[in-house]
Amino acid sequence: MLVQLTYASRVSKTLGSEDIKNILQHSQTNNQADGVTGALCLSNGIFLQILEGDRNTVNRVYHKILQDSRHKDPAILDYQEITARQFSDWSMGLIAKTEDNKQLFLKYSSNADFDPYSMSAESLRGFFDEVVGNVRWLRKSPA
Amino acid sequence: MLVQLTYASRVSKTLGSEDIKNILQHSQTNNQADGVTGALCLSNGIFLQILEGDRNTVNRVYHKILQDSRHKDPAILDYQEITARQFSDWSMGLIAKTEDNKQLFLKYSSNADFDPYSMSAESLRGFFDEVVGNVRWLRKSPA
Amino acid sequence: MLVQLTYASRVSKTLGSEDIKNILQHSQTNNQADGVTGALCLSNGIFLQILEGDRNTVNRVYHKILQDSRHKDPAILDYQEITARQFSDWSMGLIAKTEDNKQLFLKYSSNADFDPYSMSAESLRGFFDEVVGNVRWLRKSPA
Amino acid sequence: MLVQLTYASRVSKTLGSEDIKNILQHSQTNNQADGVTGALCLSNGIFLQILEGDRNTVNRVYHKILQDSRHKDPAILDYQEITARQFSDWSMGLIAKTEDNKQLFLKYSSNADFDPYSMSAESLRGFFDEVVGNVRWLRKSPA
Amino acid sequence: MLVQLTYASRVSKTLGSEDIKNILQHSQTNNQADGVTGALCLSNGIFLQILEGDRNTVNRVYHKILQDSRHKDPAILDYQEITARQFSDWSMGLIAKTEDNKQLFLKYSSNADFDPYSMSAESLRGFFDEVVGNVRWLRKSPA
Amino acid sequence: MLVQLTYASRVSKTLGSEDIKNILQHSQTNNQADGVTGALCLSNGIFLQILEGDRNTVNRVYHKILQDSRHKDPAILDYQEITARQFSDWSMGLIAKTEDNKQLFLKYSSNADFDPYSMSAESLRGFFDEVVGNVRWLRKSPA
Amino acid sequence: MLVQLTYASRVSKTLGSEDIKNILQHSQTNNQADGVTGALCLSNGIFLQILEGDRNTVNRVYHKILQDSRHKDPAILDYQEITARQFSDWSMGLIAKTEDNKQLFLKYSSNADFDPYSMSAESLRGFFDEVVGNVRWLRKSPA
Amino acid sequence: MLVQLTYASRVSKTLGSEDIKNILQHSQTNNQADGVTGALCLSNGIFLQILEGDRNTVNRVYHKILQDSRHKDPAILDYQEITARQFSDWSMGLIAKTEDNKQLFLKYSSNADFDPYSMSAESLRGFFDEVVGNVRWLRKSPA
Amino acid sequence: MLVQLTYASRVSKTLGSEDIKNILQHSQTNNQADGVTGALCLSNGIFLQILEGDRNTVNRVYHKILQDSRHKDPAILDYQEITARQFSDWSMGLIAKTEDNKQLFLKYSSNADFDPYSMSAESLRGFFDEVVGNVRWLRKSPA
Amino acid sequence: MLVQLTYASRVSKTLGSEDIKNILQHSQTNNQADGVTGALCLSNGIFLQILEGDRNTVNRVYHKILQDSRHKDPAILDYQEITARQFSDWSMGLIAKTEDNKQLFLKYSSNADFDPYSMSAESLRGFFDEVVGNVRWLRKSPA
Ligand SMILES: Cc1cc2nc3c(=O)[nH]c(=O)nc-3n(C[C@H](O)[C@H](O)[C@H](O)COP(=O)(O)O)c2cc1C
Ligand SMILES: Cc1cc2nc3c(=O)[nH]c(=O)nc-3n(C[C@H](O)[C@H](O)[C@H](O)COP(=O)(O)O)c2cc1C
Ligand SMILES: Cc1cc2nc3c(=O)[nH]c(=O)nc-3n(C[C@H](O)[C@H](O)[C@H](O)COP(=O)(O)O)c2cc1C
Ligand SMILES: Cc1cc2nc3c(=O)[nH]c(=O)nc-3n(C[C@H](O)[C@H](O)[C@H](O)COP(=O)(O)O)c2cc1C
Ligand SMILES: Cc1cc2nc3c(=O)[nH]c(=O)nc-3n(C[C@H](O)[C@H](O)[C@H](O)COP(=O)(O)O)c2cc1C
Ligand SMILES: Cc1cc2nc3c(=O)[nH]c(=O)nc-3n(C[C@H](O)[C@H](O)[C@H](O)COP(=O)(O)O)c2cc1C
Ligand SMILES: Cc1cc2nc3c(=O)[nH]c(=O)nc-3n(C[C@H](O)[C@H](O)[C@H](O)COP(=O)(O)O)c2cc1C
Ligand SMILES: Cc1cc2nc3c(=O)[nH]c(=O)nc-3n(C[C@H](O)[C@H](O)[C@H](O)COP(=O)(O)O)c2cc1C
Ligand SMILES: Cc1cc2nc3c(=O)[nH]c(=O)nc-3n(C[C@H](O)[C@H](O)[C@H](O)COP(=O)(O)O)c2cc1C
Ligand SMILES: Cc1cc2nc3c(=O)[nH]c(=O)nc-3n(C[C@H](O)[C@H](O)[C@H](O)COP(=O)(O)O)c2cc1C
Repeated sequence: MLVQLTYASRVSKTLGSEDIKNILQHSQTNNQADGVTGALCLSNGIFLQILEGDRNTVNRVYHKILQDSRHKDPAILDYQEITARQFSDWSMGLIAKTEDNKQLFLKYSSNADFDPYSMSAESLRGFFDEVVGNVRWLRKSPA
Repeated sequence: MLVQLTYASRVSKTLGSEDIKNILQHSQTNNQADGVTGALCLSNGIFLQILEGDRNTVNRVYHKILQDSRHKDPAILDYQEITARQFSDWSMGLIAKTEDNKQLFLKYSSNADFDPYSMSAESLRGFFDEVVGNVRWLRKSPA
Repeated sequence: MLVQLTYASRVSKTLGSEDIKNILQHSQTNNQADGVTGALCLSNGIFLQILEGDRNTVNRVYHKILQDSRHKDPAILDYQEITARQFSDWSMGLIAKTEDNKQLFLKYSSNADFDPYSMSAESLRGFFDEVVGNVRWLRKSPA
Repeated sequence: MLVQLTYASRVSKTLGSEDIKNILQHSQTNNQADGVTGALCLSNGIFLQILEGDRNTVNRVYHKILQDSRHKDPAILDYQEITARQFSDWSMGLIAKTEDNKQLFLKYSSNADFDPYSMSAESLRGFFDEVVGNVRWLRKSPA
Repeated sequence: MLVQLTYASRVSKTLGSEDIKNILQHSQTNNQADGVTGALCLSNGIFLQILEGDRNTVNRVYHKILQDSRHKDPAILDYQEITARQFSDWSMGLIAKTEDNKQLFLKYSSNADFDPYSMSAESLRGFFDEVVGNVRWLRKSPA
Repeated sequence: MLVQLTYASRVSKTLGSEDIKNILQHSQTNNQADGVTGALCLSNGIFLQILEGDRNTVNRVYHKILQDSRHKDPAILDYQEITARQFSDWSMGLIAKTEDNKQLFLKYSSNADFDPYSMSAESLRGFFDEVVGNVRWLRKSPA
Repeated sequence: MLVQLTYASRVSKTLGSEDIKNILQHSQTNNQADGVTGALCLSNGIFLQILEGDRNTVNRVYHKILQDSRHKDPAILDYQEITARQFSDWSMGLIAKTEDNKQLFLKYSSNADFDPYSMSAESLRGFFDEVVGNVRWLRKSPA
Repeated sequence: MLVQLTYASRVSKTLGSEDIKNILQHSQTNNQADGVTGALCLSNGIFLQILEGDRNTVNRVYHKILQDSRHKDPAILDYQEITARQFSDWSMGLIAKTEDNKQLFLKYSSNADFDPYSMSAESLRGFFDEVVGNVRWLRKSPA
Repeated sequence: MLVQLTYASRVSKTLGSEDIKNILQHSQTNNQADGVTGALCLSNGIFLQILEGDRNTVNRVYHKILQDSRHKDPAILDYQEITARQFSDWSMGLIAKTEDNKQLFLKYSSNADFDPYSMSAESLRGFFDEVVGNVRWLRKSPA
Repeated sequence: MLVQLTYASRVSKTLGSEDIKNILQHSQTNNQADGVTGALCLSNGIFLQILEGDRNTVNRVYHKILQDSRHKDPAILDYQEITARQFSDWSMGLIAKTEDNKQLFLKYSSNADFDPYSMSAESLRGFFDEVVGNVRWLRKSPA
């Protein structure tokens, strides 16, 4: 059974682009092996991640990520069984921090400052639909 | 929670393009800070404004605008929770008074003379959909 | 409240293109002032007219037209509340009598000889949708 | 083709229960012969009538009633093709003026004082659904 | 056009049952004259009111109530055009504070302590549906 | 925002009815304070729990429960934003182990031996709908 | 494939109850052997018959009945593939001529005088639904 | 009322292209006068014809065609009331026998050998939709 | 994943009630162990069986049954993923051969003689819905 | 009646491209004669085949293929009645093993290693829709 899980968390201390590179590299290696795909966004000190794959695997990966001391305050924001993946080309894509994105955040949330904690599941789906429809927003590693 | 509120009001005395410029400037500055977006239309002595953003903020802004002595007879015409903003590119766009617009007013209301007080919520949604789909009708300040 | 009313009637005596020109001119002048829009068709000795605008106004105009001795046997064929006008560019367009139209009549009715009295409301909506989507069928006055 | 037509009109001069009895009697006799059914309501100086039957017949009857000098300001409020009649048991039922009805008017309109001119087609359908579902509101003649 | 408007506000100072009785009496007298119906709830220092009636009237009444110094922090929570009123029997019903209601609040909100500010429009509609379906929760004045 | 989260986990060692009583008591005390409601089921060495309440709170509670060493292998099985709670009468109800339940498990899963890990979100919703519709299946503490 | 076919025809000469009895007896014997079910109505000199069964068989039976000189002017009024029969208890039921039926005819057609030729397929379905839901209208042979 | 009737029949003896030419010519002349449109297909010794027009006329034409000794085993396969004709440009189009058509037959039926008797109404609608959308399949007379 | 599979087959030689008893006993023992539920019908020399349970298990059981020399000509007639079982109370119920059933067969098929091979998936679902809704048609073993 | 049947099976021993060529050739010859169309995929030691055509024929072919000793562990994964074939141009197309397909497998299943046994019917439909929409994935024989 394919599922999609979206959660937010806060960075526990300031993270540099090296830290992100590190998280991405491990994610990409592990997820490829696990058949997990998705995207990650870090902005305003908040992570937003979407994970998709087999229900058991996504659960195992999510509950492993929870142990990572680099973030805290996890909150599941959306979860659903799916027929097809949205991010099948990305073992873990990075949604880049750009001016464009500010506009995108604003479109789906209360503020141009990224705050996924305040977004509804439906707004998050709208947000990821635009991200996946506009590949220039996705990168393999931080610029 | 994102919401959209549309209301009409009547100018309390004749307003010139300086007055509108002034309202727009304050709106644009404040709304950008507040994460509020929308559009404003003044025609036939009647304001029609659509405000979108966080429910609490939109409510605060709307109830502040009500105090403004430059208009009177406020009437909420539409209100709904939304998933995505329609005017995310406009902290407050001005819907310009042109011959084209006359046609647009006529399409959605009883008369070519703009009268939002007589429009249903559904007609207003049709009207704003055309406005936002046709950016040439939106300006930053009066010509 | 915007409404659309469609009716048919029979010419009470043979009418020439001058008569039609006269009806159209009065209609266009009055309807523009009244915020009424629509289209008129005369074929096979039968009028088919669609009127749209404010509910009260359309009712007043329709009940005035009923008094006109140039036609008889009025029959309301369709009536509905609408969100947007279909003929907002036409204070009263004339649906021209051409070979093309024969085809159009046939598509939505029992016969190539125009007989709106036998058409259902849904067929009439199909007919007017094609007319409005194909502006070459609409004229300001008889050729 | 079966249709339903609803209109309102104003009494042209004050009418007593004898006048109503007279209108009802003629209506019941004529409508039975014509296969027309429906209901009539007089309140607050306003008639609200729903006529149902064959499209041609309902049109002929409606356009005849228009000539009646006992009322004026006719306004078609709803019209639709139907599959089955709602008032098949009533050649012309009278919706009685009672305290109960006040409540019913208020439920579907702006005011306890009956004002069908301000009611939407959908509210009118709600109103007649309750009337027909509650036969005690229908009479053969004024009490 | 019939509309329904729901808003919350906070009491500006502690109010006793005499104050509520006073608000209810004025509301009932005025609303009956205005053709306005609805319900009011005071719990946890928060008012929740639903107003229904003609669009212009509801707007006038709401914008008048806003001036009342007995409450502050108004927030529109729901607004819609309706076909029929829900509270046609109540010029202004009081939703009584009881143990039962605690359960009802909890069912539709985050907490047994009444907090309409956190409720979605859809939860509020669920809440009022249960209230109106269970008349024992509605009173004419405080016990 | 109200949400509902359903997860399964495995008991890490055999648990007696005292352990369950202990879990239930803490849950009921904490959840009542937190405005959390739901139900818990232990069968075949597997927990199935549904938690409902404010999104932030449910997330905090769920991520706390994850730390509990009495269970392992957590798997989120369903999650959704809701308008109204299903278990508003239960701070944490116990779905009792009975012969009846075997039938219920079989109806929604592959086997009479309870295995929520193999159930789809939709089957789980069917299962909880029957549980909540049949209060005799819910208890305050183990028999 | 199960189908349902409804047609009308006119009696070619006046038929007495003996003729009907004869038609019914042959129909019932043949149809039972053929797995055909349905109902027959004779009123106002018009037959209305609904036949249901295997597509090939219904076609064969219908095209045989067409040869019968006792009727003329056949007109197919409705035809559809079905999942279940409506008249599975009747190899050929007779819809009796009674005062009640007059009311039923009027409800679904232009006139109390039975005229299926003017009924739409949807009205006919409404008519047969009431017939089958009200077994007292069905008989094995003329009274 | 516009309807569409589709039936199949078998040629009673082998027919040459002269016979088809003759059938088409008579059909085109008669149907144009009758306001009937449609298409005819002869393949594998089986006719498939779709007739559209006024309900009475289509019925009259169909029941006349039934008398034609050039075919037998008629079977109505589809019948429906329509809002607009599909073949308004063809008084009777001939669906040509080509290799392309084999593919088309196969797509909607059990076999590349044309067998409309085995096709469901829905498959037939799919088939005619492709035919009408691909005018090269329609001819005025056999090649 | 829960599925439901329906197939028909023909008895390869005449079977007596002992044979059926034997099939049922093995089915009930095996299916209970396998978590398979369903119903079996033997009439007119044709088996109709519905099997429900885990997708893998149902497939294994079905492909085992295929080997059974007591039947031949297997044909899958319906298959679907389900949320809940219909026959959760029956490891294998026998749909008894009675006069009542003849009526039931006729309702959903071409003939009172049971012929599931000619039934559509939708008719079969209608058939099983009535069976399961009317427990008197289900038995543990032949009478 | 047209149906579509999808099943998976495992190769019973390693198969080379000659074996596949052989299976395809027999399939193409037989299926063309039988009016069967479809596609076959072999990857990761697993066959996935979709068969479409007349219900009886597809059943006969499927139950014949089951006897083939070159595969085992058959599992029906999807089955439905259809209006039109998806693979009408392919008596049996081969879905080629390419890097592209890996992506396609991943999009609809848990893993880039092809595992149709774990795919839902809906995911399989998504998968075949993409295959048929992208003909470059279909071949007549192994490269
Ligand atoms: C916000 C965030 C997202 C992460 N996403 C993933 C992920 O998608 N996949 C993954 O394997 N690890 C992810 N990690 C890293 C894991 O927590 C953990 O460090 C990593 O899986 C360990 O990898 P290793 O087993 O290669 O050492 C993430 C960490 C953080 C902080
Ligand atoms: C029709 C109308 C629309 C307005 N819209 C806005 C608005 O969207 N945002 C805003 O901040 N002020 C708006 N205003 C102006 C406010 O009433 C008020 O003057 C302004 O917010 C004060 O700005 P300041 O705090 O910068 O002095 C509007 C005024 C009018 C008359
Ligand atoms: C078929 C028909 C359609 C007409 N349509 C309109 C119309 O749309 N608007 C209108 O004002 N008059 C219309 N008229 C003309 C009116 O009946 C009437 O002659 C006219 O409104 C009087 O115009 P006046 O007030 O300028 O003299 C129509 C007349 C006919 C016969
Ligand atoms: C409000 C109103 C409603 C009427 N409704 C009907 C009606 O439904 N049927 C009818 O025949 N006459 C109706 N009439 C009366 C007609 O206008 C006319 O007087 C009557 O049909 C003449 O009847 P007679 O032909 O028997 O003289 C109505 C009149 C009024 C004022
Ligand atoms: C929470 C609240 C709700 C109220 N609701 C209404 C109302 O529904 N109708 C109304 O006329 N007044 C309402 N009022 C009172 C008005 O603010 C105002 O005091 C009142 O209309 C004045 O009545 P008067 O014109 O009879 O003096 C409300 C006041 C408060 C604080
Ligand atoms: C399967 C399971 C379900 C639990 N559910 C809840 C719960 O709904 N709420 C809760 O507060 N604790 C729950 N707990 C217990 C928590 O893990 C933890 O022991 C408890 O909240 C601590 O309570 P305390 O703060 O009163 O010591 C659960 C534990 C298990 C093993
Ligand atoms: C209006 C009408 C309806 C009929 N319906 C049926 C029918 O449903 N089944 C049938 O077998 N015959 C029906 N018949 C009679 C046939 O036309 C024919 O007379 C009869 O099938 C011959 O029966 P036999 O083969 O027993 O002589 C009907 C005749 C008429 C006039
Ligand atoms: C398969 C088939 C289809 C036919 N279709 C039509 C048709 O659509 N219209 C028509 O008038 N005649 C059609 N006919 C011919 C009629 O049966 C009859 O011969 C013809 O209408 C007589 O024409 P006439 O009145 O000009 O002599 C068809 C005949 C066959 C065999
Ligand atoms: C029509 C038919 C239906 C059957 N249904 C089942 C069934 O549902 N379950 C089952 O285990 N065996 C079923 N069987 C019997 C199996 O083919 C086989 O004989 C049986 O499973 C062997 O049981 P055993 O393993 O106990 O010897 C059926 C046989 C027939 C002919
Ligand atoms: C995975 C698989 C798929 C097959 N698909 C088909 C098929 O679609 N049609 C077919 O006739 N044979 C198919 N076969 C082959 C049959 O099992 C059998 O060998 C073949 O029909 C015999 O053909 P013949 O009658 O020409 O000897 C398939 C075999 C396998 C292993």
